[in-house]
Amino acid sequence: MRLLDLIAKKRDGGRHSPEEIAFLARCASDQGVPDYQLAAWLMAVFCRGMDFEETAELTKAMAASGRRFDFSGIPAPKVDKHSTGGVGDGISLVLAPLAAEAGLIVPMMSGRGLGHPGGTLDKLESIPGLRVRLSMEEVTRQLSAIGVAMFGQSQDLAPADGKFYRLRDATATVPSLPLITASILSKKLAEGLDSLVLDVKVGSGAFFAKKADAKKLAHSMVKTAKLSGLKAIAVLTDMDQPLGRAVGNACEMRQAIEILQGDLRAADYVECLLVLGGWMLALSGKARSAEAGVAQLEKILESGAAAARLKKMIEFQGGDSRVVADPDLLTMSPLTAELKAPRAGFISRLDALLVGQASVLLGAGRAKAEDSVDFGAGLMIEKKAGDRVEKGQAVLRLYANDQAKLAAALERLKPALEITPRPPKSRKIILETIR
Amino acid sequence: MRLLDLIAKKRDGGRHSPEEIAFLARCASDQGVPDYQLAAWLMAVFCRGMDFEETAELTKAMAASGRRFDFSGIPAPKVDKHSTGGVGDGISLVLAPLAAEAGLIVPMMSGRGLGHPGGTLDKLESIPGLRVRLSMEEVTRQLSAIGVAMFGQSQDLAPADGKFYRLRDATATVPSLPLITASILSKKLAEGLDSLVLDVKVGSGAFFAKKADAKKLAHSMVKTAKLSGLKAIAVLTDMDQPLGRAVGNACEMRQAIEILQGDLRAADYVECLLVLGGWMLALSGKARSAEAGVAQLEKILESGAAAARLKKMIEFQGGDSRVVADPDLLTMSPLTAELKAPRAGFISRLDALLVGQASVLLGAGRAKAEDSVDFGAGLMIEKKAGDRVEKGQAVLRLYANDQAKLAAALERLKPALEITPRPPKSRKIILETIR
Repeated sequence: MRLLDLIAKKRDGGRHSPEEIAFLARCASDQGVPDYQLAAWLMAVFCRGMDFEETAELTKAMAASGRRFDFSGIPAPKVDKHSTGGVGDGISLVLAPLAAEAGLIVPMMSGRGLGHPGGTLDKLESIPGLRVRLSMEEVTRQLSAIGVAMFGQSQDLAPADGKFYRLRDATATVPSLPLITASILSKKLAEGLDSLVLDVKVGSGAFFAKKADAKKLAHSMVKTAKLSGLKAIAVLTDMDQPLGRAVGNACEMRQAIEILQGDLRAADYVECLLVLGGWMLALSGKARSAEAGVAQLEKILESGAAAARLKKMIEFQGGDSRVVADPDLLTMSPLTAELKAPRAGFISRLDALLVGQASVLLGAGRAKAEDSVDFGAGLMIEKKAGDRVEKGQAVLRLYANDQAKLAAALERLKPALEITPRPPKSRKIILETIR
Repeated sequence: MRLLDLIAKKRDGGRHSPEEIAFLARCASDQGVPDYQLAAWLMAVFCRGMDFEETAELTKAMAASGRRFDFSGIPAPKVDKHSTGGVGDGISLVLAPLAAEAGLIVPMMSGRGLGHPGGTLDKLESIPGLRVRLSMEEVTRQLSAIGVAMFGQSQDLAPADGKFYRLRDATATVPSLPLITASILSKKLAEGLDSLVLDVKVGSGAFFAKKADAKKLAHSMVKTAKLSGLKAIAVLTDMDQPLGRAVGNACEMRQAIEILQGDLRAADYVECLLVLGGWMLALSGKARSAEAGVAQLEKILESGAAAARLKKMIEFQGGDSRVVADPDLLTMSPLTAELKAPRAGFISRLDALLVGQASVLLGAGRAKAEDSVDFGAGLMIEKKAGDRVEKGQAVLRLYANDQAKLAAALERLKPALEITPRPPKSRKIILETIR
């Protein structure tokens, strides 16, 4: 088999056999194969597409290209949740210990933030001392003991995906549906999961602004996951305004602890959390249905038991677990400012993208991969779409360590807020389920 | 301007501005630009295409990427002919001195053979001592003195095309109409021409087997050449059977000398030669029409004056010019065999591709670029489509320096010949003219 022939085949709209896909994944791990040939193939895939079977074969081949987790010794369902990313989307911080408390094994592999969507690893690291670089052996031991671990991806997991990803980034072939699908799922498959719940965000603060595009990815991921041997479901959720009441690292971690303690004021966040968790239980056979799963999780939240599970996880990963009893140990940056309502009325819009960009300007996120983050920077959301505000009332409270950052963020936020005299149509957080 | 953005633009079917095309050609000459980005752009062009304006801009930018010939000091029209390649297509060997004799300046830059189509440089080098590596200064001096030079491409002519071509070859992006067009024309433009006549071959022995495909390239080349400031015309000619009566290096050179001496038995070859030459004269204003040009060239052929012009050219390029008076000095390989008619009848088909492949097996061509050629190897064609043959009569006479090569070529030739009881429909050599 010759890579050149496979490039020509895809170039002409041909369909790759499983053997050809396996060969391509081996080429991506082979130092001797020139990058320009892989790049030409990637662009041919971008232009001609791949069907679900081809995408599933690529997913499996990339998952098999490096080390894989093996949790077969742990006799419980292994389930993960993956979000396409959004503003204020710290759901994993609550969902992982909550699902573990409900009896699932949750090996949650996460990433760092880049641009306006935050990253789970950054939020976790706002806990003093907490380590997210865990060896495969540490993850396995921790899962056996407490059912949950949250950690970063190691380089020897799905290295073919790593190679393809770096090339895609440099050749304008990132936004290809089959390539996105195979990239996400190959890492999940290498994680040794039984089931996967996908949270595909839709709106200004999401990768997809339009529901139709998000739905295509959701469909591609669910179909491909099933063909790859992974139970899967996707939930389309709103990301037109930020999720919950906090955007940033320490402040999202604080909010997560409060929810685990039973404080359910962040209603949209909690609804999203419960639906995703309900599906995790349903997919893995721990609940009859997603609705039954939601009921189980509500009881656990009321009991506060999941907060204890988080405490154990923080201890296992070397962090200061006193934060669970005292979230104020997660300190916010010293300087603050407020975005105030310019007039009385109802908030009809609070734009997620602009809030996310403001959080980066405050220091909570990264503009470039090599930037460092300020854990204490961020925004607390006092009022959301649908809420009544008086003139001059605070809508957002900003935190930073520098007045210039506060000023830049406030400037960016000016067009984010819309106020109307009448209440806007109420909005849904759960838009659609793709099975 | 960033190459990544230009890749994304073409990927999405966008149209490049002249400034963007110029940037892309500079990238191809820039060692610092990674090949994988150029490869991704080439595949995007393959998939999304370029219009004639973009192709003309690329042609001009690649022509400007290196040294260029400057014949502005020579007060006569500069004209070249380019063929897409075929079996027995040694027309340049006759046409270059003939057109020079008619008053044109003919800087004929040619290539070597690879696969079944022969290469003009190999045919020329069958003349002992003849040099085809000429410096720009040598070419200019020779054109001033005798109006004709035949030589190979130097690496500093259109180096951006060289870079793109090597990448295309390794990334399955060769058969892209705009890229083929720009590649051919950029070199012609750097040659300092006023006019160009294109011979686009159609049939089993050509790059295009189907007339519709050949016509598309012809149209693309003529349109792009005109937009690049070059007068141009394309003639579609038949390549379903080999052209003329010889396939090989020494034997095609012999045939060329014989035609220049007035031996016009190779009727299809001579017709093709005269039509292409007639257009060279018409385009450059040396004849009122192509037909008038043909009449001029016929007179010159009758006079034998063009043979003297060839003699001068051989002398200028250091070759043994006695071959013009005595073509037998171009010796054929010692071993011979015949392909005989298996029954009496009329030849309805003599397949060009198989004859071309047989010539490679005999040693006249190259299977790989690094192979050497046997100048004396080849085939003489005794009978062509439409001719009457008796059972056992020789149709082809093969020459090689090895019995095994003769046997392999005869085996390859078995399906090349078709004989029918009645005369086949007569075939045209000139299929269409694209202006």
